[in-house]
Amino acid sequence: MPLAATSTVQIDNDEVRVTEWRLAPGAATGHHRHGMDYVIVPVADGDMTIVAPDGTRSIAKLKAGQSYFRKAGVEHDVLNESTAEIVFLEVELKA
Amino acid sequence: MPLAATSTVQIDNDEVRVTEWRLAPGAATGHHRHGMDYVIVPVADGDMTIVAPDGTRSIAKLKAGQSYFRKAGVEHDVLNESTAEIVFLEVELKA
Repeated sequence: MPLAATSTVQIDNDEVRVTEWRLAPGAATGHHRHGMDYVIVPVADGDMTIVAPDGTRSIAKLKAGQSYFRKAGVEHDVLNESTAEIVFLEVELKA
Repeated sequence: MPLAATSTVQIDNDEVRVTEWRLAPGAATGHHRHGMDYVIVPVADGDMTIVAPDGTRSIAKLKAGQSYFRKAGVEHDVLNESTAEIVFLEVELKA
């Protein structure tokens, strides 16, 4: 069983929730479905493994400060199979 | 006259606009008023000088990955009076 990712909520109000995620080498978020549209802001460079519901694996290259947007409904597990910690902020858009 | 800050829009859709701001030492954004609620995500540690409309100056300590939220209507100039580049993302909430 993989290590658990750790999460810290930094902001949570009517409009937005911002959560810091840290994945040590070997850690995973566990399979989850995004209920809101969201922006990811990597805090460090890193290689993140994404596992789709059908088991397909892909590597997302994270670059510190290079954000990307995803729509609600995305479903996946996120793993750190690298040797460096993965750190990013998830900005969930409530409106 | 101070150097201009540089900005790069990373995401711009119906819900959110994400802009990367870079202020070299000596650079300033110029006085501006925020039209939308926003989240700031520092990409690097830094000391940012904020000048309020009445001329009051304060130093905001930026820590990489430590976000904060502000409501629309905030009005200020933002300067880099330090010796290191300041880099942050501004996440403007449109909804």
